[in-house]
Amino acid sequence: MPNEQQHVTNLDSWLDSYAARAETLAVSEVRALFSVVSRPEVVSLAGGMPYVAALPQDLLAKAYNDMMKEKGLLAIQYGGGQGDQKLREQILELMALEGINASVEDLVVTTGSQHGLDMLAGLFLDEGDVVLAEGPSYVGAIGIFRHYEAHIEHVYTDHDGMSPEALQDSIDKMKAQGKKIKFLYLVPNFANPSGVTLSADRRPKILEICKREHILIIEDNPYGLLYFDKPVPDALRSMDDEGIVYLGSFSKILAPGFRVGYVLAPPAIRDKMVLAQESALLCPSSFTQMMISEYLANADWKGQIDTFRGVYKERKDAALSAMHEYLPNLETTRPDGGFYLWVTLPEGIDSKAMLPLAVKELVAYTPGTAFYGDGTGQRYLRVCYSYPTPENIKVGIKRLANVINLQTDLMETFSNSGR
Amino acid sequence: MPNEQQHVTNLDSWLDSYAARAETLAVSEVRALFSVVSRPEVVSLAGGMPYVAALPQDLLAKAYNDMMKEKGLLAIQYGGGQGDQKLREQILELMALEGINASVEDLVVTTGSQHGLDMLAGLFLDEGDVVLAEGPSYVGAIGIFRHYEAHIEHVYTDHDGMSPEALQDSIDKMKAQGKKIKFLYLVPNFANPSGVTLSADRRPKILEICKREHILIIEDNPYGLLYFDKPVPDALRSMDDEGIVYLGSFSKILAPGFRVGYVLAPPAIRDKMVLAQESALLCPSSFTQMMISEYLANADWKGQIDTFRGVYKERKDAALSAMHEYLPNLETTRPDGGFYLWVTLPEGIDSKAMLPLAVKELVAYTPGTAFYGDGTGQRYLRVCYSYPTPENIKVGIKRLANVINLQTDLMETFSNSGR
Repeated sequence: MPNEQQHVTNLDSWLDSYAARAETLAVSEVRALFSVVSRPEVVSLAGGMPYVAALPQDLLAKAYNDMMKEKGLLAIQYGGGQGDQKLREQILELMALEGINASVEDLVVTTGSQHGLDMLAGLFLDEGDVVLAEGPSYVGAIGIFRHYEAHIEHVYTDHDGMSPEALQDSIDKMKAQGKKIKFLYLVPNFANPSGVTLSADRRPKILEICKREHILIIEDNPYGLLYFDKPVPDALRSMDDEGIVYLGSFSKILAPGFRVGYVLAPPAIRDKMVLAQESALLCPSSFTQMMISEYLANADWKGQIDTFRGVYKERKDAALSAMHEYLPNLETTRPDGGFYLWVTLPEGIDSKAMLPLAVKELVAYTPGTAFYGDGTGQRYLRVCYSYPTPENIKVGIKRLANVINLQTDLMETFSNSGR
Repeated sequence: MPNEQQHVTNLDSWLDSYAARAETLAVSEVRALFSVVSRPEVVSLAGGMPYVAALPQDLLAKAYNDMMKEKGLLAIQYGGGQGDQKLREQILELMALEGINASVEDLVVTTGSQHGLDMLAGLFLDEGDVVLAEGPSYVGAIGIFRHYEAHIEHVYTDHDGMSPEALQDSIDKMKAQGKKIKFLYLVPNFANPSGVTLSADRRPKILEICKREHILIIEDNPYGLLYFDKPVPDALRSMDDEGIVYLGSFSKILAPGFRVGYVLAPPAIRDKMVLAQESALLCPSSFTQMMISEYLANADWKGQIDTFRGVYKERKDAALSAMHEYLPNLETTRPDGGFYLWVTLPEGIDSKAMLPLAVKELVAYTPGTAFYGDGTGQRYLRVCYSYPTPENIKVGIKRLANVINLQTDLMETFSNSGR
């Protein structure tokens, strides 16, 4: 009876009260496993965390002291709904590195670019609307689009990024079904999870198709400045300003703990973004915005991005060389920047089903299914090399190879015994 | 022609793309005026800003240094979707001051309590659902409920807070109309904008009605610890844990620039809040959470709250004595804590229509209409005394009296000339 009592307490007495959109919030199937992953003996290739230890803390201490000396009272007060004016001016310099020429008036600072995307989705998506996205696409974006009850239509994407022909096909298909396409979401540089970059010659083609079809583009670019050898092609936003909403972030070029990102949007959309932000948050944190503003004003932030580039390039090399050594027969993307490899498993292996075995072998990754809104992706997995040391990346991929090879052996045994 | 060209550019080419909920985002009618208010010659009684200059900056410097020394890498990294464990434990101590006994597992740290309320509204409100709220009610809450297309039903509220009898009447009325009531939203202590406190004997009555009618209560309590003479009655949440979601904030007892608040909710709602937060933001800022956690661990935060109490009490006294001196015939609430007076104007004066005249006289306030979701409130205005000095409060209220007296004289002249 005491047990029964306890169960009764755990029931949800408000089950009949939730809004329809609350039903869209599902616990990730792999979430439970990830609590195991934080154990030190597990090499996690799952994360997606930047290696913030490469950021010298004295740079931050200086930014903190300068900020409090110069504008301490403003830093701890409410600020404007659009974000700090000086920080927005500095962001213009950052975006200019990728060819973007914009007005400070059209920028909105957000609580991480995730919240920028959440607000955009809220502004545009009614139930059943279509979002076009790369296949695979960023798991956090898929979660948001689902939450706003949209249909996610993945567009075929290869080593040069999204295929313009496939984009046109997907648009035609959606139109034939009478569906309303609200926008195209894409991560053109070192995409999460694929690691691929949209090639320079495909960019104007994608743009032209969207312009002709009157489809808004959401260009999400958290990794663009983290290239290894040569800069990425100019941003889509550098070629058009009316049809593109551009999202940027300090999470990867500085640190994610501040939760500061930004959105550059055409004026009418920007106005609505500011109102949405005032409604949802009143204003973004003055404190974290001004810390970053001081850092940009006084620290060698370009040199720091170079440092990050060096760290991630070394880790990418470690990951690719371990793949070559331990899993030479598997196809993987070869990123020119960013955090991720996208690995194709032998046919018949399901990366989600295999994950518990991998965690038992003390290595973790993210199964491909996380990056598709349509239930596919079983044959792929994402390796994130940004956080573990090169040595641990090697150990992790060796363990991964053990798991995959065991699976392959088992499959062959069964298939032989079936003959 | 160049002008026409410019107008064309300003048109919104995405007008046909927005979601239905985007229509609910309206620019505040008084917003344009408020840009004028920031001029130094204007005494603003409009704001709602805490007086953060009363917080010694060395307390923050110590918190920053301790944080970076002890957990610098965690502070700038992504954190969990529920918020920092240690901060959540410390929040329990804070809530215990108002009689709340809770588990750290049921707390979610949010980006200000505004975002907690936004997420709750998103979890519960479908179009046309009813939210019960005090009349008047917090402008930021009204904005959120409107954004989720809810109907806001104001419940009669007097100097002892919301009337239980009126609550029952409102419930009966909504039920008779076949409407679905999703929750009761209230600010029981030194409410924004009325300044009134829900009396101790009404609290169990409100609770009992909601329990019987199966209506969830959202208890929003940013001001409770800022009492002037004696502590507030125990929180509603101290008397019930299944039917109440409790919102708290560091914006008024520490500083709003951090954007840190919290939500205490029954387990099933808490689970959904964490998922909603992960979807919207990934996680709240580790940096600002850990700053506050260090501050709570090492600074005399209770002494600091006493300091704030002293500041606000002095300003409330200045405001009431200026009201007594310059506007002796007007009815005003007499708050026992918090930031606000609620003033009833002579019949026939419209506070929104009068605002431009007041700004011309170099004083600003917030018109009563901002605090009603039903278009009423013209006869009231909110005076916020938290930010200006006592001397400026006196100057501001004197100017306000000039404007009101001129209006009254005009009315009398017209009414005499009409005889």
